[in-house]
Amino acid sequence: MNVPFRVNNCSIERTLDIVGEKWTFLVLREAFSGVRRFADMQAITGAPRQVLSARLARLVDEGLLRKEPYREPGQRQRDEYRLTEKGRDLYPLLVALMHWGDKHLSGDEGPPVLLTHRDCGAPIELHFRCADGHEVGGPREVTPVPGEGADLRSA
Amino acid sequence: MNVPFRVNNCSIERTLDIVGEKWTFLVLREAFSGVRRFADMQAITGAPRQVLSARLARLVDEGLLRKEPYREPGQRQRDEYRLTEKGRDLYPLLVALMHWGDKHLSGDEGPPVLLTHRDCGAPIELHFRCADGHEVGGPREVTPVPGEGADLRSA
Repeated sequence: MNVPFRVNNCSIERTLDIVGEKWTFLVLREAFSGVRRFADMQAITGAPRQVLSARLARLVDEGLLRKEPYREPGQRQRDEYRLTEKGRDLYPLLVALMHWGDKHLSGDEGPPVLLTHRDCGAPIELHFRCADGHEVGGPREVTPVPGEGADLRSA
Repeated sequence: MNVPFRVNNCSIERTLDIVGEKWTFLVLREAFSGVRRFADMQAITGAPRQVLSARLARLVDEGLLRKEPYREPGQRQRDEYRLTEKGRDLYPLLVALMHWGDKHLSGDEGPPVLLTHRDCGAPIELHFRCADGHEVGGPREVTPVPGEGADLRSA
């Protein structure tokens, strides 16, 4: 797939400016797994405290997580972290990371986790389809064209 | 989506150990765009020379890119970098990054680049479907279960 034009405002690059770092992805993975509390995230990811704290603050600032106060008996009030809709929209990205690892890195044992359809139990897959309903197999069947918001680069 | 079990061999984490860094994603983006030469990658991404060199070497070591020698007239032989099948399998990941940025970061102008179906010109979309053919809308319709290769963590 050759791209015959260039833009200065690439969506991939903008997204990576927010989530393009391993700990950020791992925090999001935990959020999707239902983990909401700082101490639990720290225990599970093994992230250094300050790193985790910085990543969570950034994800809240960018609107991918929101804070919700809670209080355990006899303790001070703390915050839980919950995915917003903007954060939940990253689900395909997490699944794409996981499926690639399942295919290429899990070896003979097979994948560690299977994502299955709640209603029928069959494994889920990520597919490309065009807006007209045709199945699209991969990059060779895709043509990139400048979008409405293209800030084209001079060559 | 609560995950009622834990594994030590998470595919997301393993994948991030290879590609979980901004420059690596940008190198892969360029590879998908048909850019093959070091100098072109450097000019387009703006990556520092040593960073780009290290990222390319890692991607070759991991089998996502392969080197192919070429020689321009009057110059010494150099290497081009081409995606392997393992590298091309990252396409859904790159598209997921791009679509999220299109939706949440491109603002009123609209997306900078549209990926269209080569045959009909309609924009492409990423969909979840289960192996039994049902459409799956998102994380709420997904149940994670331990896979064959699950290395379960003690609680």
